[in-house]
Amino acid sequence: MQDLSPTKLSHLDETGSAQMVDVSSKSVTVREAIATGQVTMKKSTFIQIEEGNAPKGDVLGTAKIAGIMAAKQTSSLIPLCHPLPLTKIEVIITPDDNLCGYHIQARVKTEGKTGVEMEALTAVSVTALTLYDMAKAMEKTITIEAIKLVSKTGGKSSL
Amino acid sequence: MQDLSPTKLSHLDETGSAQMVDVSSKSVTVREAIATGQVTMKKSTFIQIEEGNAPKGDVLGTAKIAGIMAAKQTSSLIPLCHPLPLTKIEVIITPDDNLCGYHIQARVKTEGKTGVEMEALTAVSVTALTLYDMAKAMEKTITIEAIKLVSKTGGKSSL
Amino acid sequence: MQDLSPTKLSHLDETGSAQMVDVSSKSVTVREAIATGQVTMKKSTFIQIEEGNAPKGDVLGTAKIAGIMAAKQTSSLIPLCHPLPLTKIEVIITPDDNLCGYHIQARVKTEGKTGVEMEALTAVSVTALTLYDMAKAMEKTITIEAIKLVSKTGGKSSL
Amino acid sequence: MQDLSPTKLSHLDETGSAQMVDVSSKSVTVREAIATGQVTMKKSTFIQIEEGNAPKGDVLGTAKIAGIMAAKQTSSLIPLCHPLPLTKIEVIITPDDNLCGYHIQARVKTEGKTGVEMEALTAVSVTALTLYDMAKAMEKTITIEAIKLVSKTGGKSSL
Amino acid sequence: MQDLSPTKLSHLDETGSAQMVDVSSKSVTVREAIATGQVTMKKSTFIQIEEGNAPKGDVLGTAKIAGIMAAKQTSSLIPLCHPLPLTKIEVIITPDDNLCGYHIQARVKTEGKTGVEMEALTAVSVTALTLYDMAKAMEKTITIEAIKLVSKTGGKSSL
Amino acid sequence: MQDLSPTKLSHLDETGSAQMVDVSSKSVTVREAIATGQVTMKKSTFIQIEEGNAPKGDVLGTAKIAGIMAAKQTSSLIPLCHPLPLTKIEVIITPDDNLCGYHIQARVKTEGKTGVEMEALTAVSVTALTLYDMAKAMEKTITIEAIKLVSKTGGKSSL
Repeated sequence: MQDLSPTKLSHLDETGSAQMVDVSSKSVTVREAIATGQVTMKKSTFIQIEEGNAPKGDVLGTAKIAGIMAAKQTSSLIPLCHPLPLTKIEVIITPDDNLCGYHIQARVKTEGKTGVEMEALTAVSVTALTLYDMAKAMEKTITIEAIKLVSKTGGKSSL
Repeated sequence: MQDLSPTKLSHLDETGSAQMVDVSSKSVTVREAIATGQVTMKKSTFIQIEEGNAPKGDVLGTAKIAGIMAAKQTSSLIPLCHPLPLTKIEVIITPDDNLCGYHIQARVKTEGKTGVEMEALTAVSVTALTLYDMAKAMEKTITIEAIKLVSKTGGKSSL
Repeated sequence: MQDLSPTKLSHLDETGSAQMVDVSSKSVTVREAIATGQVTMKKSTFIQIEEGNAPKGDVLGTAKIAGIMAAKQTSSLIPLCHPLPLTKIEVIITPDDNLCGYHIQARVKTEGKTGVEMEALTAVSVTALTLYDMAKAMEKTITIEAIKLVSKTGGKSSL
Repeated sequence: MQDLSPTKLSHLDETGSAQMVDVSSKSVTVREAIATGQVTMKKSTFIQIEEGNAPKGDVLGTAKIAGIMAAKQTSSLIPLCHPLPLTKIEVIITPDDNLCGYHIQARVKTEGKTGVEMEALTAVSVTALTLYDMAKAMEKTITIEAIKLVSKTGGKSSL
Repeated sequence: MQDLSPTKLSHLDETGSAQMVDVSSKSVTVREAIATGQVTMKKSTFIQIEEGNAPKGDVLGTAKIAGIMAAKQTSSLIPLCHPLPLTKIEVIITPDDNLCGYHIQARVKTEGKTGVEMEALTAVSVTALTLYDMAKAMEKTITIEAIKLVSKTGGKSSL
Repeated sequence: MQDLSPTKLSHLDETGSAQMVDVSSKSVTVREAIATGQVTMKKSTFIQIEEGNAPKGDVLGTAKIAGIMAAKQTSSLIPLCHPLPLTKIEVIITPDDNLCGYHIQARVKTEGKTGVEMEALTAVSVTALTLYDMAKAMEKTITIEAIKLVSKTGGKSSL
């Protein structure tokens, strides 16, 4: 049976409401996280992007830039995220004929006191949203799928 | 057979690269968009959130606030989005036992010259990311799924 | 006896949680708000500022610029504030020997669908915080006082 | 008699105007600051908030999130503040029947080269502004009072 | 002889300090501004960029995106600029063998109460800065030149 | 003959597109960069500013504050810049009768893993843009010139 007992509730204040947890005593190490996601669409939209004919121009280049820039805004977007000095942000977009869409992978590194999962996930999300925006004049049924963490190293808990 | 001929390429400059399209001549109307998405997790994580025992505190309340605030940052995050005076942002999070997770719906309105699909999709995405952040100490396999537009009214093309 | 019955609960969604209220149907009018506040300090600090000898330089000029710029960030700072096209922001700082400190007044105008009280109050607050920052090397007991709305015109309810 | 001679004018350039002081040679230590403030209102407004009937929804939860997020924006809001990697942000709001209002306390930590007084004061201010915003449909005479530093540790000068 | 009498001092408050001028009574019209600038470099750097071999990747594509995004941040960067709903932002970068560098042109439109000169100039500046950043590993003597307004239409004064 | 062989292409991913380079293994040192630029104008405009009669108020003070604040936004504006904890930002504006305009110098320091050239150049650019904005009601032919790096210390490559 599942153990539902709470893990250490370090983020809870007396009243149960949200607080940004204290990471002062955590050690500064190189930490890395990799997240992935997918954007799926109609074949016609996919072909138009692959042929470089998308109405808004360079879909994948614009989406990558947006994802990289968004990673740097993570602590402004996610209320309880700690601001961190990111040392690397890489976004890779890979077309997939079978998926009829794109795989997005973001890899983020820091040398800091807490991990960069949210930065990698935010980079994937905003890359996907921008890909959507660049393609939405062609189709209104594009879907963003399967955003998740695939790797995490450098802290106490790995994946 | 599918028609792959490009739709009107209003966003392309001479060199094919990305530009923010001119909406000056579009009419100002009330425009609304609704987007949805899902966050799925292990049963133990879901129960812990539902019982109000998540380590970082009020998961759903924090996620909603983050989604609403993110909608207002859409044109800063998505390179070719037009800044718009949003008149309403609503985020609803609904638990689903069968899904073992949450449905997120964002409804955004403007009275402007272009639609608010990206604002609704951004609200859903950041609500999901924040829900993830609030729960990630409990589980590293949470997944964000099925972010898509479900309704769009007020412009030339509806959904 | 006081009437504690709630005013119109237009901001409440079904679950009682926070939402950005719909102002789509409100009319666009010129709206203005004036807010005030005070910063009080030791006589020595006050004299040093008045003589232009504050360690960080031009205290009042820097504080005014900060207040004006902050008014434009109001909808990013206050979760449920609507973004508005501000048409005027004025910050006035007046020294007061008796107070041993400064009166701050911010006047903000828009031509929009909702009022600018929060923009005026935010301008006063950040002007006060910056004044504090510019003077804090001289004294650690500076206090920000009495931030409130003094006038509001152009919407349905005035003050 | 008071000594009005200026303290060390490290922030002054040749022309007397504002500059962001050089902290390169200061040591990296754990630094903490605690600031407080108050928001006062009519009894009817206070009761309506306490009973959970405020028109805009969860007043205190929303205000806390806003305060935490604002602390992370301090160096963007206050012109001469140094950007710092905050390691903890905690906002506590306590109701006070006698005050007819709320006490706000913010505690901020960093491991950096300069203190976090302004971050704590900014967190208090924006928590107070958001509380105001969430309650302003009920009353236009809410007042923000007594924002000040109550504790500062970790640097050369303590309080 | 030059007439040095001041033009209408609408931006001055009583104390001569900076204020964001009131544009409430100005009419909403379509306004456009075009600004230009140049980035000059060594022949070797120019060739490396033109051949697509710059170390940081797609120099011109990244610079254009950055310029477009910066135009939307103008009122956050320039203290007394009014926030405006931009309806078009176009950045064109043209290589020039003789110049040994690039011409940048930004065209910005709004339908608002004041002009978009600063938005166009900001787009040019940040496009140039990004081009610099993308190329700076190759050379430290790149120079940004001749940023100026070349056209302005739609308001009272044209160029 | 010039060597056009590419320098180390550390910023390139497999597909040649832009990525934020990994600086994790670079050492944390005190790094400083100095950049300069000019703003030139008509004699009448220059005199009006020098006499303190510019329509928008304190031109040079406002421009300096804007430049300092912009340096802190560099990593948000320039897509592939790393966020850095700046330890000093100094902006100096010097009038020059012969130039009929102003020299701007920005000096920025960090203790980090990569240099602050872009921060110094961004500070100069936004100082110049703000000076332009403060003076543009007097003249539409103001020009921003000669923005370049003049010194860089603390990293592997100096200038």
